Order: sequence, then C-alpha cells, then structure tokens
Amino acid sequence: MAAGNLIDGRAIAEQIHAATAQHVSALKSRGIEPKQVFVRVGEDPASKVYVGMKEKTSARLGIASETRVLPETATEAELLTIIAQLNADRAVHGILIQAPLPKHISESRIFAAVSPDKDVDGFHPINVGKLMLGDETGFHPCTPAGVHELLIRADVKIAGAEIVILGRGNIVGKPMAAILCQKARHADATVTLCHSRTRDVAAHCRRADIIIAAMGVAEFVKADMVKPGAVVVDVGVNRLPDPSAKSGSRLVGDVDFANVQPIAGLITPNPGGVGPMTIAMLLANTTRAAELATR
Amino acid sequence: MAAGNLIDGRAIAEQIHAATAQHVSALKSRGIEPKQVFVRVGEDPASKVYVGMKEKTSARLGIASETRVLPETATEAELLTIIAQLNADRAVHGILIQAPLPKHISESRIFAAVSPDKDVDGFHPINVGKLMLGDETGFHPCTPAGVHELLIRADVKIAGAEIVILGRGNIVGKPMAAILCQKARHADATVTLCHSRTRDVAAHCRRADIIIAAMGVAEFVKADMVKPGAVVVDVGVNRLPDPSAKSGSRLVGDVDFANVQPIAGLITPNPGGVGPMTIAMLLANTTRAAELATR
Repeated sequence: MAAGNLIDGRAIAEQIHAATAQHVSALKSRGIEPKQVFVRVGEDPASKVYVGMKEKTSARLGIASETRVLPETATEAELLTIIAQLNADRAVHGILIQAPLPKHISESRIFAAVSPDKDVDGFHPINVGKLMLGDETGFHPCTPAGVHELLIRADVKIAGAEIVILGRGNIVGKPMAAILCQKARHADATVTLCHSRTRDVAAHCRRADIIIAAMGVAEFVKADMVKPGAVVVDVGVNRLPDPSAKSGSRLVGDVDFANVQPIAGLITPNPGGVGPMTIAMLLANTTRAAELATR
Repeated sequence: MAAGNLIDGRAIAEQIHAATAQHVSALKSRGIEPKQVFVRVGEDPASKVYVGMKEKTSARLGIASETRVLPETATEAELLTIIAQLNADRAVHGILIQAPLPKHISESRIFAAVSPDKDVDGFHPINVGKLMLGDETGFHPCTPAGVHELLIRADVKIAGAEIVILGRGNIVGKPMAAILCQKARHADATVTLCHSRTRDVAAHCRRADIIIAAMGVAEFVKADMVKPGAVVVDVGVNRLPDPSAKSGSRLVGDVDFANVQPIAGLITPNPGGVGPMTIAMLLANTTRAAELATR
C-alpha cells in the first residue's frame, strides 16, 4: 500500500470501495436498494465540490443518492422539516447534512435531529456517546474512522503506541481520540489530545509514535517536531493565497510535507491521504445503515 | 478548603449540598418536589452502603427518594419493565441504577433504557455524547463531575495544565478526559489518558501538573512518579486484606498517600476526597432534572 514511505489513501479507499460495492450487490440481490440523501444549504464552493464527489462515488458503487439544495436564507425550521421527512422515508437509509451550515442555523441542533439510524456522518450525540462508550452498534464519524482504517491497512501498530492528536474538534480530534483509546483490537493506544491551549505541542509531538494533525493550521507540523520513524497523518485542508496558481490559491495540509516526509516512518500525502478515506467510510456507513434498516 | 495540602472533599461537598438544598427549597416553593428512585439488584454489600448513603443525604437536602430492590435472580426484562414505569412516572425526576449489576444483565442496555432526562448518573449514550461534544444540556457522570468541581473549588489552574488520567473506564476515566479537554472555562487542559496498555505510565505521571488516578490498582501512584508540587486526585477504592482490621480488610486508594502527600502540591485524602463529591453531584443533577422537567 505504500510507495516509499507514503500511505496511499486513494489505493486503500479503493479497497474499501470494492468491499462496499460487493456489500451493495448483496443487498440488491435481497431487494434492498441503499440510498442516501445529501442536504446542502447555500452555495459554499467547497461544499459543492464535496457533495459532488460523494454523489459520483455513490453512483459508482451502486448506491442511489439525491441532493437537496436549500438557499442560504433557509431557516432552521425549514431544514428541520426536511430532516423529519427524510427520517420518516423508509427508502432513505443515510442522511448527510453538509457542513458548514449558514451561521443562523445551529449545527448541533441539526445534527441531533437526524435519526441516529440514518446518521451516516456519526455526528448525532447518541452515536458520539456509543463511540465513547466502546459500543460498536453506532456509526463512527467518517474522517476519524477513515484515519483509523488507514492506519490498520498500512499495518501501523496502534496497540500500546503513543499517539498525539493535534486539534480537538468534534468532527476529527475528539472522536479520533475516542476511537484510539478504547480497550479493543486496533486501538489500546495512549492518546494525548493537544490543541491551541497546549503548553508545548512540539514536545508532545517529539515523543509520539503516531501524530495525527487535524487542527487546521497550514504546515504546522515541522520536521523538528517529529521523532524519526514516526507515522504522520495529515487531516488538514487549508487554503493559502498563491498568485502563481490559476485559482489564486493552493491547498496545503497541517504538515510541512516536504521536510517531514524524509524523516517519517510513514506519512500520508495530502491530497491523496485522508481525503479519499472520508468518502469511503461514508459509503460503507450508508451501506451498513441500509442493511440494519431491514432487520 | 485545604488543611496543609489536603483538598477537603467533605467540606467542598457540603458547599455543594448547601447550594442544592437552597435549589430544592426554591423548587418546593413553586410546588415541585424533587424525587429520585434508586434501583438495586441483589445484595452486594458495597452497593447497599452506597445506596444507603445516597438515601440519607437526599433526605437531608429535602429530596424525596425511594429504593426498589430486586433479587439477584431478576431478569433484564424485569429490570427494563421497572425502568419503563419510572421513565413514565412524572413524579420521578431522577433514576439511578446502582452498579454493578449481576453478570446476566447488560449494564449498557440498562443504562441506555433510562430516559436521558432522568439519567442523573450521566451514563446514557446521549448524555455521554453531549458531554463529548461540549453540549452542556446533558448530565455529566457524577464522579468525574465531582473531581472537576473539586479542582475548581480548590483553585487548581486547569486551563493549559498537563493532566494525566490513569484508567479509561466509562464511569470515570473517559468522561473525565472529555470534561477536561473541552474548549471551555475551567477546562482547556492537555489530557493524556493512560491505561493498562500504556508503555511508560510513570514517565507520563512525572510530567503531569495534575494526576487523576482511577484505574483501580491499590497504591499504584508512588512518590517517584509525581512531579513535586503536582496536584494528585485519588478516585480509587480498593479493598485489601488486613488481618488487623475488624472487618478483615481495609480500603485503600490508587495513590500511595503516605509517600505522595509530602511532595504533592495538593492531594485528595481517601476517604474524604472524591467520594463525598460523587453524591453531591448526583443530588445536584437530580435537582436540576426536577427543574428541567417542569419547563
């Protein structure tokens, strides 16, 4: 899976897609048609790209999908009404509300309104609670689940490892810590969760066997913060101005890749590392939701 | 609050009891009678003692309570039926299922059956999820909430502190980490969660500003594992054989108190540290549940 010391997220995502496509076929042969609905509010360019990629990949795996687009001015009540309809619709197995939502809408209220059984993003409090409690009946959030799967399939030893996570967001950092600290196979790590108030992030990074960077600070992880041979996973997506680029900007991760790559044991490229895994885990979750709905 | 370097859990618990008693009086003047029901299965001696203490303290604060006792042979279905009745009973604001339950009953299924609004123990997945997400509308589990309150009232600086938690149980270790890592007042700490698979627990402890020991290993934390001046909180309750004691055994914590106390900045005695706080937070939760039920 690795060319040199690169963890090839695209190739690993394809392995998962292949398994999901098989799962979808098996469900279809039993008359179950997995379907998910994406809900997008407003015209955020990144959100449009993400939803477009999710639709395209769904189609490739045989998962039906539909996108509902609401105007930027939509109210929370309107969005809640749509969610209630989708919750009640037995043909819909997965519901994904694309973040970020406009500021006048509470993301936490919206995420909590999605039926936990259709919460393929894993953001509903009950799914977050189950993850924390080590109860495997819920859905894991897609990005940390994707990082976890990436580490497993790249044969990284997680049990007993010292893992430093940078960033304590609800979408990556906190659930990532919850997954890796469990008393369970492919977990059992000692996790330190660092953030903006951490006194000496560099010192924590230097003692880590695995660094997972998800704080959203461009090229924050420098070579002198990485223990030689450590595994470095870059979850960041930061847009930097770049006059030489056609778009006027370029995307960089949270890791100073050019300088960290020579000393890391394994490292994810960015793009081509974590990104493809997020979609792979989403579609695996949706297919599982379809399977569970028929029990 | 501290005699020498002791954090006096009994005195701090009494401060909280006083506030709870006032809250109870205010509710009663509005015609609300806070009430909780304890459910105990079997005759575990420690459970009998704990429930007895909770009943007695409830009475002292003016909170009505009732204890249902089921035989050791009770089935999960019987227990679920009682929980459903209590969930439906509008006069009951808090429900506490005393752990441990007999082995033939699934604690996680039982805890998830209690209505989240009456889950004053904070064990329901939705309350655990809310805690993790930083959503303050849920109930925090009583022991970690008690430790948190103890640190706050003992004026321990939590923001930016390096905190090492020993033990990753669902009742103390994991929720404790979730409370302390939040981007919030009296939190904002850098938390490392250690456990039986941690490679070098002593090294983690030695760099900690605050150690919270909740792994259930008698006198595990030794003096040479503590940085001089660090704050040490002992959540452990371990029974050791002691022929010189009338009962044939004695209770000790997870900290080697006699040797750690001289070098700690602050330390909780055990008993008299965390224990009284657990009950204080429970009764505060129940009173809050009564208040919320009437909204």
